[in-house]
Amino acid sequence: MSLLVVGSIAYDTIETQHRRVESVLGGSASYFSACASFFTPPRLVGIVGSDFRQEHIEFYRSLGVDTAGLEVAAGRTFRWHGRYKGDLSSATTVSVELNVFDDYRPKIPAAFRQSRYVFLANGSPKTQIAVLDQVSDPAFVLADSMNLWIETERAALLDLLRRVDGIILNNHEAVQLSGRSNLIAAGRAILEMGPRILILKKAEHGAFLMSRDEFFAVPAFPLADVQDPTGAGDSFAGGLMGYLAQNGSPSFAHLKRGVLYGTVTASFAIEDFSLDRLKRLTRPEIEHRFQEFVRLITP
Amino acid sequence: MSLLVVGSIAYDTIETQHRRVESVLGGSASYFSACASFFTPPRLVGIVGSDFRQEHIEFYRSLGVDTAGLEVAAGRTFRWHGRYKGDLSSATTVSVELNVFDDYRPKIPAAFRQSRYVFLANGSPKTQIAVLDQVSDPAFVLADSMNLWIETERAALLDLLRRVDGIILNNHEAVQLSGRSNLIAAGRAILEMGPRILILKKAEHGAFLMSRDEFFAVPAFPLADVQDPTGAGDSFAGGLMGYLAQNGSPSFAHLKRGVLYGTVTASFAIEDFSLDRLKRLTRPEIEHRFQEFVRLITP
Repeated sequence: MSLLVVGSIAYDTIETQHRRVESVLGGSASYFSACASFFTPPRLVGIVGSDFRQEHIEFYRSLGVDTAGLEVAAGRTFRWHGRYKGDLSSATTVSVELNVFDDYRPKIPAAFRQSRYVFLANGSPKTQIAVLDQVSDPAFVLADSMNLWIETERAALLDLLRRVDGIILNNHEAVQLSGRSNLIAAGRAILEMGPRILILKKAEHGAFLMSRDEFFAVPAFPLADVQDPTGAGDSFAGGLMGYLAQNGSPSFAHLKRGVLYGTVTASFAIEDFSLDRLKRLTRPEIEHRFQEFVRLITP
Repeated sequence: MSLLVVGSIAYDTIETQHRRVESVLGGSASYFSACASFFTPPRLVGIVGSDFRQEHIEFYRSLGVDTAGLEVAAGRTFRWHGRYKGDLSSATTVSVELNVFDDYRPKIPAAFRQSRYVFLANGSPKTQIAVLDQVSDPAFVLADSMNLWIETERAALLDLLRRVDGIILNNHEAVQLSGRSNLIAAGRAILEMGPRILILKKAEHGAFLMSRDEFFAVPAFPLADVQDPTGAGDSFAGGLMGYLAQNGSPSFAHLKRGVLYGTVTASFAIEDFSLDRLKRLTRPEIEHRFQEFVRLITP
């Protein structure tokens, strides 16, 4: 089934203890699309500047991504410069240039408006709502958010939560949004705000999938060597939503399996910088690691 | 099969945001024994002062704990006073009085020396080695340790690691001992130091069970209301070792199941202060939560 993603496309500069890469392809929509593309061809809506390299558009297309919603505007592509500490657990933003992404109002092409699965990558909840206003009768909408919007656009975020099927947050965001420090209590409080599904990401500690009546917990896939955690959350969402769209049902059983696939695609994404590992990734590799992961967590 | 535990018995004063309790029963051997007792009657070796209340000895005995190794010395019982911050993730030690536990040299009663399963609760690695010197041919020895010994008695700890079957550490200790910040890499490095099994505890994020060839990851049991995390690690070890001793095999399959039971006993322990929840706990409750836990984590 059809899968729409609306999010950022960026050129990232990333520093870790061991390496620095400059102006490499990044952005939530890039990671999401690349991971989803192994399951179903995603429809990408986003904006880039006139400096965006043709090779990157070709890369999306080589993955089967429909780029009809990719707007090319005068100006520079969104840029993010982040630096990770030794254990890669958190990034410090060195600089952000919103550039063409500033005040971007996503326009959903007519051909995309019937999309059945929709991922609203992290962005202003007002913009996310404006996107929802352009799509008709989706089967499952998942939204991402962040601390900034919880602080500055809480009312709009609460409106959004009443209009989506699922919300995906990290543990810090869930605590901040709910005001509860216990993650289970935080999750329950967020489900009271509207969505029927909460996905709570805990980075190297895995994820919780919660509904009002059901619960599923998974650890992260065990990796001894993480190169660059940038895009892990969007890569997780890409595997999850790609799997759901491929299988055509957002039932809890499918969501569980989607969370496993999302864990797997995220684990590949962080093995190299930018989307480099995803460029080399194959569906059989995903399947192989999925089976290995199931074995590692089956009680 | 027989199960021996050597560890501390304490009177704790515990403060959380909501409550303060004074001079309540605690200590690694207390939590361990109480949790293990639901599976197999443990043999307890430890020391208390003349102030130790008879009701607490009766409590151990009511659980089937063999207290033949419980030494009562002139002086006061070991005391710990801890304070938890709002989210209960870490305790600040307000004060410690080692009292009779200071320079304690555990004497293993002759009747306990053939114990097949042995848990060396957190203590000086020199003392842990002295205990091992008194037991003959155990089937499975698991040792706990802490940051203090990693810093101050590293050589003795490395000796100990070559003599035990398993080591149980929290994530901070594993990083400190190995010098690796990635937990999988840390785990592999520790397994190179001697033990065939590492159990890596991550508090609310669950645990890893690792051998050189095998791996198992479990989340914590989801609890919306944690009252007092004191003793969680020893309660985990108690359920794990109790299950292993009951079933008589430290195979990886049994260790996996033991880790699930340990997760369950720990989840009960932290629902109330001191050992209060464990006092009311029944084996059917453990079994019921075990089944629920398996359901929540089965992919």
